[in-house]
Amino acid sequence: MHDFRFFHPVEVRYADLDAQRHVNNACYFTYMEQARLKYIQQLGLWDGANFDGIGVILVDQSCTYKAPIAYGQHIHVGVRVTNLGNKSLELAVSIRDRDTDQEMAAGRTVLVAYDYLSEKSHPIPDHWREVIRAYEGTE
Amino acid sequence: MHDFRFFHPVEVRYADLDAQRHVNNACYFTYMEQARLKYIQQLGLWDGANFDGIGVILVDQSCTYKAPIAYGQHIHVGVRVTNLGNKSLELAVSIRDRDTDQEMAAGRTVLVAYDYLSEKSHPIPDHWREVIRAYEGTE
Amino acid sequence: MHDFRFFHPVEVRYADLDAQRHVNNACYFTYMEQARLKYIQQLGLWDGANFDGIGVILVDQSCTYKAPIAYGQHIHVGVRVTNLGNKSLELAVSIRDRDTDQEMAAGRTVLVAYDYLSEKSHPIPDHWREVIRAYEGTE
Amino acid sequence: MHDFRFFHPVEVRYADLDAQRHVNNACYFTYMEQARLKYIQQLGLWDGANFDGIGVILVDQSCTYKAPIAYGQHIHVGVRVTNLGNKSLELAVSIRDRDTDQEMAAGRTVLVAYDYLSEKSHPIPDHWREVIRAYEGTE
Repeated sequence: MHDFRFFHPVEVRYADLDAQRHVNNACYFTYMEQARLKYIQQLGLWDGANFDGIGVILVDQSCTYKAPIAYGQHIHVGVRVTNLGNKSLELAVSIRDRDTDQEMAAGRTVLVAYDYLSEKSHPIPDHWREVIRAYEGTE
Repeated sequence: MHDFRFFHPVEVRYADLDAQRHVNNACYFTYMEQARLKYIQQLGLWDGANFDGIGVILVDQSCTYKAPIAYGQHIHVGVRVTNLGNKSLELAVSIRDRDTDQEMAAGRTVLVAYDYLSEKSHPIPDHWREVIRAYEGTE
Repeated sequence: MHDFRFFHPVEVRYADLDAQRHVNNACYFTYMEQARLKYIQQLGLWDGANFDGIGVILVDQSCTYKAPIAYGQHIHVGVRVTNLGNKSLELAVSIRDRDTDQEMAAGRTVLVAYDYLSEKSHPIPDHWREVIRAYEGTE
Repeated sequence: MHDFRFFHPVEVRYADLDAQRHVNNACYFTYMEQARLKYIQQLGLWDGANFDGIGVILVDQSCTYKAPIAYGQHIHVGVRVTNLGNKSLELAVSIRDRDTDQEMAAGRTVLVAYDYLSEKSHPIPDHWREVIRAYEGTE
């Protein structure tokens, strides 16, 4: 069982495999990134087009590998915000088999609210807080 | 208009973009590879699991870039066999916008029938010829 | 034997390999891109920093695969301009083993002079012509 | 200052950049992987060729991003073993600017001794312990 309201499906590409014939470890972070951006778009916090206006920067992430991912496996990636700080927000990420719900990997991502044009961090905008709390059902 | 019976959808990943903020040129070949393998699987010529038994090796490919591909754009890749030689087969590939049918890139791929265990090329098996001709509707 | 004045060394990364345990076919184009940009930098035509000012756009490329490239193999990539048209220039690219000089792949790349800000092609600047001709020793 | 005896240089590729025009976050793990494998090869624990005999599997990793990495920046990646457990070993990884020694990112990697053919973990071989302790100068 899991606690993710949001999932994004990812197709495993042949090019994602490495010489061990499973998805390369760095590629798990590509899957997490793709799902994270789709989450932000789903919540209406980014338009998917203005790369200077994405509003957050990645400062820390980790992945615990639980099982190898194979070519042809049906995968989706759960994302949810687990903590809202002053400037930073923390996400839990879960790469799972769509057919069996097996968790293939669990990730944790820390983002900081950031203005790419001025290259400065800033407090998370109130609008972000409200939208995320409403979506995740936290008060 | 196009002549492709087979199309495979590809999701543009944020990680496919480069500093020009469009899909990187090498990534077009990743899209073509993914569609090519799905085509071979669709025709029942590869099981998607036995990497030593994929039966073909890439010897030549090209891509003509017609328009940049953006993050969020809905893309699919058409594949068809355009020529069956003795040992080689030639594919036409077309990366197109799913919404507008605009062709973003046109590719050409030459594969040779190949045994990865003995590392030797060989004539295209009759079974491949029959299946491909039946699928493509060529005699 | 080859006719390349310019070579750029590329380290094969483990992540460049695919399930066939050799460098993935799309990655050859990444190697060619890297060498092409270093060539343009070497000739003083790009500063390596201003991505809007790179001055050329890729319109066509191809690769003939001659031998698989292995992890740990010492590779370098030869680049030279083989034709200067009005708006387009054509490059020959050669991926070779640094130790044996074996050619692993031969590529051909067509670039068009391009202004990324106005999104328009234009004739190759005279300065580019002069610098390329001087470097390549063509009149 | 740092405590790494081993460093591996990595060339930033244009294809490593993303739409933010810096090295993509997942690519940091590719750099860490490349350095980690070269470390294992440097210590004579892997021959760089037998992918079934690499002897370890990745179970956990993290990265703290300290500064964006630019195209053309001279980078190297420090690796050292910081802990040897029964079955697992922990590595510290540091991506640094070769010119200024600035740390761009700090990573932590947990590997488990693993037989890819039987798909089973096992205690770290005594030979590995001895070689790593001798190299790192720990008792």
